[in-house]
Amino acid sequence: MITALAGGVGAARFLQGLIKIVPKKELTVIVNTGDDIQLYGLHVSPDLDIIMYTLAEIVDKEKGWGIQRDTFHCLELLQKYGHETWFKLGDRDLATHIQRTLLLKSGLSLSEATSKLCRSLGLKVKLLPMTNDKFETHIKTGKDTIHFQEYLVKRGAQDKVIDVMFEGAEEAQPAPGVIDSILNADTIIVCPSNPIVSIGTILSVKGVRDGLRKTKAKVVAISPIVGGAPIKGPADKLMQGLGLEVSTYSVANLYRDFLDVFIIDNIDQAKKERVEELGLHTVTTNTIMKSLQDKIQLARVTLKSVESSSQI
Amino acid sequence: MITALAGGVGAARFLQGLIKIVPKKELTVIVNTGDDIQLYGLHVSPDLDIIMYTLAEIVDKEKGWGIQRDTFHCLELLQKYGHETWFKLGDRDLATHIQRTLLLKSGLSLSEATSKLCRSLGLKVKLLPMTNDKFETHIKTGKDTIHFQEYLVKRGAQDKVIDVMFEGAEEAQPAPGVIDSILNADTIIVCPSNPIVSIGTILSVKGVRDGLRKTKAKVVAISPIVGGAPIKGPADKLMQGLGLEVSTYSVANLYRDFLDVFIIDNIDQAKKERVEELGLHTVTTNTIMKSLQDKIQLARVTLKSVESSSQI
Repeated sequence: MITALAGGVGAARFLQGLIKIVPKKELTVIVNTGDDIQLYGLHVSPDLDIIMYTLAEIVDKEKGWGIQRDTFHCLELLQKYGHETWFKLGDRDLATHIQRTLLLKSGLSLSEATSKLCRSLGLKVKLLPMTNDKFETHIKTGKDTIHFQEYLVKRGAQDKVIDVMFEGAEEAQPAPGVIDSILNADTIIVCPSNPIVSIGTILSVKGVRDGLRKTKAKVVAISPIVGGAPIKGPADKLMQGLGLEVSTYSVANLYRDFLDVFIIDNIDQAKKERVEELGLHTVTTNTIMKSLQDKIQLARVTLKSVESSSQI
Repeated sequence: MITALAGGVGAARFLQGLIKIVPKKELTVIVNTGDDIQLYGLHVSPDLDIIMYTLAEIVDKEKGWGIQRDTFHCLELLQKYGHETWFKLGDRDLATHIQRTLLLKSGLSLSEATSKLCRSLGLKVKLLPMTNDKFETHIKTGKDTIHFQEYLVKRGAQDKVIDVMFEGAEEAQPAPGVIDSILNADTIIVCPSNPIVSIGTILSVKGVRDGLRKTKAKVVAISPIVGGAPIKGPADKLMQGLGLEVSTYSVANLYRDFLDVFIIDNIDQAKKERVEELGLHTVTTNTIMKSLQDKIQLARVTLKSVESSSQI
């Protein structure tokens, strides 16, 4: 059994490769919900949707989010009705938010709603939101404190980051299955996602970090930082904002208390030694996923790295 | 000042002509809300939308409802999520329902929400829902009792009609402005709409029928029945179900207590005398509206008929 910790696009790309080499039924993915946001009265779960659409093979491949060949007609009229429309909700995509909102309103938890959505889209992989409770990532900028989506999408991650806050983290309980899937896995993979607002959020949920420390599973992470910068997204700006060095070492250091293996890009070969000083088995490979073959190859190396670390 | 009582497509067509010959600001339209229905957690007001889209000149002209050049991508995915999709909500159209639901949830009344939507679409005509309270038209068929939309759209008006019920009618208060616009109008036009489920619903709202009897305005109705059948919709089946003769006479008889003038189609010339026996000034003209010219012409005759009736 494999359990993965995932954010959005980077994680989705990695998982696309992984499901080609492991039985889907053996995979559980714990997904960040700190990006969740209410828009037009609808509950939007960006990372759950990215993972779900990608694994259902309906994602807009070019963008990495949303549904392929989607239109934006509803949004156009919502704009005419006076709404801000910086969050690009497609017409097909809207069905997911309408259905999720409906299911939540009927009394289902976000886990149950996610499970129903996934089943409708034919997903065999189990997706678990990290929590069913309200949990929102807020960014403290030079002038105000805003929802992460507003920082990222509306303002294009241009603000100076002073702090990152997880609203609701203290009360948020892990969703059913989250801790069990960590304790009972054979392998745990921390996907190449933002270490602060994707993985950091999951780690902040009660019992998760502790479970990762206690589990007998091997825990392997793939660095989202390659050559001193993230492949995608604002990880560098957030890390800088928190006074962290933007490097593979820095990410490894954030995970060191529960990690067995760390995978870094060939480009960062020179930094391997420093990471190993943290006591981590470190593997270098190509981590930049362009083709499906790249994704499968990275998944293969990731699984293999755990086997070899067991033999050490 | 002119006040019109309106259902959906037939009324919208007539009003399209009317606004070409009277200042829009002098027109108030009281619209049936008995067709309103909750779909996917959204508040849909079919008749308000038909009138609004038509007067905003964005209606799908061929169908007479919905927005022109709309797509149905959201609905496709909602179907995949297990929903029935017999009510054809377009992607652009959805924005209206999302916005209305949002406004209602924020505490606004249906009147206030309607007014906001209309303003966004540039409407100068005042649209008033007949009531802000829950009011649903149900049809008792041979085997069950169903929402009017289910009878009409889902089942294609194929069921035998045993009875028509207005759920909520006893408690429903007229929306603000409804009674005033009846009492203070110079002319009241009952549009060529279904006399049972479009006009009948409005008449059943507390104070409306009484207001129509008391007003000093001339009240004129256009028969929706032409040559013994409705131009569109299931008026014949509903009238039959209620034991009524399907004829212009029968419609006139339903309105006789508050009507001054009744307009019937040239085709029904032979029936004029019988209608006049009800004490109504009766005018024959072409009431079948195909071109904009037809609509304007009917509006002209309607306004003129009231003037001439005043001189009697």
